[in-house]
Amino acid sequence: MNFCSDNVTGVAPEIMAALVAANDGAAMPYGNDEYTQRLDVLFSKLFETDVTVFPVATGSAANAIALSVLTPPFGAIYCYAESHINVDECGAPEFYTGGAKLVTLPGYQGKIRAADLAEVLKKAGAGVVHHVQPAAVSITQVTEAGRVYTIDEIRQIAEITHAHGLSLHMDGARFANAVVSLGCTPADITWRAGVDVLSFGATKNGAMAAEAVVFFNQAKAETFSYRRKRSGHLFSKMRFLSAQLEAYIKDNLWLKNATHANQMAAHLAAGLSSLPGVKLCHRVEANEVFIQLPEAVIEGLFAEGFNFYRWEGEESTTVRLVTAFNTTEEDVTALIEAARAIFSVKSPMGASASG
Amino acid sequence: MNFCSDNVTGVAPEIMAALVAANDGAAMPYGNDEYTQRLDVLFSKLFETDVTVFPVATGSAANAIALSVLTPPFGAIYCYAESHINVDECGAPEFYTGGAKLVTLPGYQGKIRAADLAEVLKKAGAGVVHHVQPAAVSITQVTEAGRVYTIDEIRQIAEITHAHGLSLHMDGARFANAVVSLGCTPADITWRAGVDVLSFGATKNGAMAAEAVVFFNQAKAETFSYRRKRSGHLFSKMRFLSAQLEAYIKDNLWLKNATHANQMAAHLAAGLSSLPGVKLCHRVEANEVFIQLPEAVIEGLFAEGFNFYRWEGEESTTVRLVTAFNTTEEDVTALIEAARAIFSVKSPMGASASG
Amino acid sequence: MNFCSDNVTGVAPEIMAALVAANDGAAMPYGNDEYTQRLDVLFSKLFETDVTVFPVATGSAANAIALSVLTPPFGAIYCYAESHINVDECGAPEFYTGGAKLVTLPGYQGKIRAADLAEVLKKAGAGVVHHVQPAAVSITQVTEAGRVYTIDEIRQIAEITHAHGLSLHMDGARFANAVVSLGCTPADITWRAGVDVLSFGATKNGAMAAEAVVFFNQAKAETFSYRRKRSGHLFSKMRFLSAQLEAYIKDNLWLKNATHANQMAAHLAAGLSSLPGVKLCHRVEANEVFIQLPEAVIEGLFAEGFNFYRWEGEESTTVRLVTAFNTTEEDVTALIEAARAIFSVKSPMGASASG
Amino acid sequence: MNFCSDNVTGVAPEIMAALVAANDGAAMPYGNDEYTQRLDVLFSKLFETDVTVFPVATGSAANAIALSVLTPPFGAIYCYAESHINVDECGAPEFYTGGAKLVTLPGYQGKIRAADLAEVLKKAGAGVVHHVQPAAVSITQVTEAGRVYTIDEIRQIAEITHAHGLSLHMDGARFANAVVSLGCTPADITWRAGVDVLSFGATKNGAMAAEAVVFFNQAKAETFSYRRKRSGHLFSKMRFLSAQLEAYIKDNLWLKNATHANQMAAHLAAGLSSLPGVKLCHRVEANEVFIQLPEAVIEGLFAEGFNFYRWEGEESTTVRLVTAFNTTEEDVTALIEAARAIFSVKSPMGASASG
Repeated sequence: MNFCSDNVTGVAPEIMAALVAANDGAAMPYGNDEYTQRLDVLFSKLFETDVTVFPVATGSAANAIALSVLTPPFGAIYCYAESHINVDECGAPEFYTGGAKLVTLPGYQGKIRAADLAEVLKKAGAGVVHHVQPAAVSITQVTEAGRVYTIDEIRQIAEITHAHGLSLHMDGARFANAVVSLGCTPADITWRAGVDVLSFGATKNGAMAAEAVVFFNQAKAETFSYRRKRSGHLFSKMRFLSAQLEAYIKDNLWLKNATHANQMAAHLAAGLSSLPGVKLCHRVEANEVFIQLPEAVIEGLFAEGFNFYRWEGEESTTVRLVTAFNTTEEDVTALIEAARAIFSVKSPMGASASG
Repeated sequence: MNFCSDNVTGVAPEIMAALVAANDGAAMPYGNDEYTQRLDVLFSKLFETDVTVFPVATGSAANAIALSVLTPPFGAIYCYAESHINVDECGAPEFYTGGAKLVTLPGYQGKIRAADLAEVLKKAGAGVVHHVQPAAVSITQVTEAGRVYTIDEIRQIAEITHAHGLSLHMDGARFANAVVSLGCTPADITWRAGVDVLSFGATKNGAMAAEAVVFFNQAKAETFSYRRKRSGHLFSKMRFLSAQLEAYIKDNLWLKNATHANQMAAHLAAGLSSLPGVKLCHRVEANEVFIQLPEAVIEGLFAEGFNFYRWEGEESTTVRLVTAFNTTEEDVTALIEAARAIFSVKSPMGASASG
Repeated sequence: MNFCSDNVTGVAPEIMAALVAANDGAAMPYGNDEYTQRLDVLFSKLFETDVTVFPVATGSAANAIALSVLTPPFGAIYCYAESHINVDECGAPEFYTGGAKLVTLPGYQGKIRAADLAEVLKKAGAGVVHHVQPAAVSITQVTEAGRVYTIDEIRQIAEITHAHGLSLHMDGARFANAVVSLGCTPADITWRAGVDVLSFGATKNGAMAAEAVVFFNQAKAETFSYRRKRSGHLFSKMRFLSAQLEAYIKDNLWLKNATHANQMAAHLAAGLSSLPGVKLCHRVEANEVFIQLPEAVIEGLFAEGFNFYRWEGEESTTVRLVTAFNTTEEDVTALIEAARAIFSVKSPMGASASG
Repeated sequence: MNFCSDNVTGVAPEIMAALVAANDGAAMPYGNDEYTQRLDVLFSKLFETDVTVFPVATGSAANAIALSVLTPPFGAIYCYAESHINVDECGAPEFYTGGAKLVTLPGYQGKIRAADLAEVLKKAGAGVVHHVQPAAVSITQVTEAGRVYTIDEIRQIAEITHAHGLSLHMDGARFANAVVSLGCTPADITWRAGVDVLSFGATKNGAMAAEAVVFFNQAKAETFSYRRKRSGHLFSKMRFLSAQLEAYIKDNLWLKNATHANQMAAHLAAGLSSLPGVKLCHRVEANEVFIQLPEAVIEGLFAEGFNFYRWEGEESTTVRLVTAFNTTEEDVTALIEAARAIFSVKSPMGASASG
């Protein structure tokens, strides 16, 4: 049973069916197909405002091309120090922007604070030729620590961002999980709160390989097409990207999938944290559980075939458990029971309790 | 009926079946899955030598990342003036190399000549700091004009290329069609003839979105992984790229598909060129037919719903007709018959002949 | 005696005196000195319109930074195939633009034709995502062949350029020689004719290392400062660049120097072309003489210590002779006399004449 | 009197004389002159080992081109968070490397610690495709806080650097001041301690605009020439850069100048720190004094025409005073006396003392 990441999952049946269905007949290439051509309308409806949408196949492409539209080569992008764009994309934003700088902010549980951003921007040297010029802010929703930015938090960050003339990008690799977690509309945590561009993730939540870059600030979308083509991310058989996205948002599949994933994470968190000596690292709000387990439990779970990552280095006893649209109740229960069993046998606490 | 390009086609049934099959269970991400891990062995067997293979989703990504591995930012890449990398990728090679220069060569029907290359390289200013430094040569097989480089032609180009210390890249978007056309092995027109790196296309010949970058010169493969990741072309659910490639080469599907496409093009060429006043632009060796048709025939075919491109601008009477793995005999016959019918009614020649 | 290039010269005495004078006292760095701060006014007066001026130290920096302001990474810059930016700057424009493409035009004697430009732009695929997007045109004045664009020629090119929404850049490494040659004002062949940005060269005409990038279209100047700083071309002791430029245009030194250089070239051309069998390659309009000499004469001149370049490869008998602000009448006469002497002794014609 | 920076100074008389002398006669361009050609020998002697030297005109160019030789586009450069390359070059290293990432380290007074570097490199993810790849370490000597790395400190950093396969770059904008401060040889704090490439600054210490990039690891110098040309930093009249560097090291002018500057800083520090309530921020080891002054003193000095920078924002009472090769004893005394005078009148302490 694999709790390593939501990207170890396959494709949701509804999306696989859509791919099979889209395989009927010929279709004009490079987005001149009917699937792609109706995406703007579908997403505008979903977001309750006119948007321009560009399908791409990976989250790194979505983030990096979006940021390259917002940031000149001599620009600065502000983000959390441990954000995916800063530490897990091998420098993709730098590559796509032609060498812009990611300026990292402190934060907590993956979130940056509006106040920190304000402080840093005040000293950023806008207009001073020696310094990279503030251009964009990027936040991750759900954060890399499994937390969810509230509407108010986003709005506060957006206010600072816009007050300084910058653009706000949201890396929404797990956007669906955030929407479900907050019980809000997609609009509430994006353009209504001040987000200019969203990387709307689908891959981790049931697609094969599909993300939508959604421009709420449509004026900013202008160069995206060329940048996507130039980076090899314009698919000739684009209908197969667009069909995934269409199926993903049709009948609220995306919310259904995320709801399930979040519930499984909640169960996992509840089950594990009831064990003595186990400590949740922070509140579980979406589909990721960061938790400290006794070393014996970690090793025991590995031995029984459970798969997940230690989070901070090879010797860490903090682990991350990720649930997905297809994580079963049985899998979750199995892991909890396995942990409990190992616990009662091996843990020093258990031992002392029985002593 | 759509003869615009082989990229208007969908997915071959064997490949779609492979995608469905690959959807079973969890798989480690980013290429750490069993499908991807066995690609090197499968392709090494296919090419009869040890190769390193990297799956990517688009031909532009394959070409541009490959070239960026071979060429420093201050390097020159030699290619045909009308090659895809020079005119149809929105500057992807320049982007990926950090600003290398594509130096264009004259040619004929999409081919460059070894003698022209030798001449240009002699004057290229290798070692002179004022000039971009010769780094790579890129040829397209099948060429953009539907011609096929012979083994000898490739070998001659490779000799000049290597004599000057450059690397030879082959854009094999229609590699399968070339292999079938020549009746050779894949090895014959790649490493045995001196190719260092191949963009092995599958998308145009039945895949959904999959190309393999094949390094015969494995020492040169070193930085590919980082460049692929950094450009957003490392898929998290990589198994779905690799499964396509595996199905593509399994049981010689790739050759079967290309054989069919080439045959359909041959029928089309034979049927159309038998009409009076019609002129093939050049020999049909693969799955593309470049042909001059009377304006009335072109307009007539469009009116009857046949879809294809005028080749050199909006007023050109040269058209390109592309066949594919799923072009039917009926489609081909229908087009020929429709042309013949329009012809007998409208063409001045037909008129005078009947007079 | 060195006729290799005008860059083999040292510094004009007036400019050296200005450098010594500028060395008095402290000055704020990075352009916040009085010399730099008055450049905009001085150049606005010189050009009879409001301009924004940026000093840099080399012509390649001037050209490449200017072009990077005008061209997005996915852009195309149109230029003569043998232009300095295309063949003698090791890819500087590509580097600075982040990978734009230089699209080369045919021409004659270093000039492009408005008609050719119009033809190429018509087919350039503006707005089509597969193609690099037309962004700028760059012409060289004096051309690389020593010819001078007329006001009308520039105006015609500018009209086509602007009609397509592009910007017009002029590489004026020998701008002074052109102004003198045409007997026009600096305004006549720049903004009045439609030039948006000028690389105003001084180095070849008496400066130590100084060029001014002059923006007539001031709206386009916006990002220059950051690009200059970011490329290491913002000098801390900027006063020493600006003092050169000030001295260069003061009291028309730049025109005086160019007038002399042009006259020396005219004398050289007249003297050499009077010899039998010698052929000027094209009209001498500025300070460069392209001329075909008998091999014996070339070798004889080399043997006597005259220094100049064969123009098209090591075996060429076309040579380039460049005069400068400090070329003496004596040097010119010496070269002509030496050629004449070698001629009368060695040339077959001379021999047969004496026979 | 200007204590803002050592770059507010003009040119040392010996160097201006060398420029005038170098202006005699013609010289081949682009470094093919006698001045440039003897630099390798002169610097090899200075550093007691074979080196390859490249003159450039600015410190940012020296640093950024050097780093681009050492670092692939997907690489990481480790440096102090407040280092010049990270905060004062508008992203030059990112531009030149094609988008590498500067990973910042904590430190003290401008220095990084070998232990911190070791810790960070251990977790850097070398060989893991998701992360930028460790490539180079850059330290600044004298540091941005006016401190000097000891030989041992450099050696420890170099050991960690090389143990991980990285290259060590030293930004020696004030290298001369460090050599004087330590009383060591240039070799001691460069290659003997493990430095691979040095930006050997001259501009701040008496040159007009000249820095030498010195490769101790000559194998790494290979691509420098192309990168310098391509960025517009290869001067046509190169002799005027090289003549500066030659004069700078001739007869130990560079050490003489630095000795004087360091002494002036020492006097300044001694004089000011004897005033009550004044606090040196850290030890003065070279030619920079970071000191906390009462607001009244700062304002008083400004009012009397002394020029210097508040160091951390507009409201800071920490100021930086920089001395240079031509700072006079009188200037230093004048500043101290002026401060003392303001102090005795205005400072609360002085007030209470008189009470």
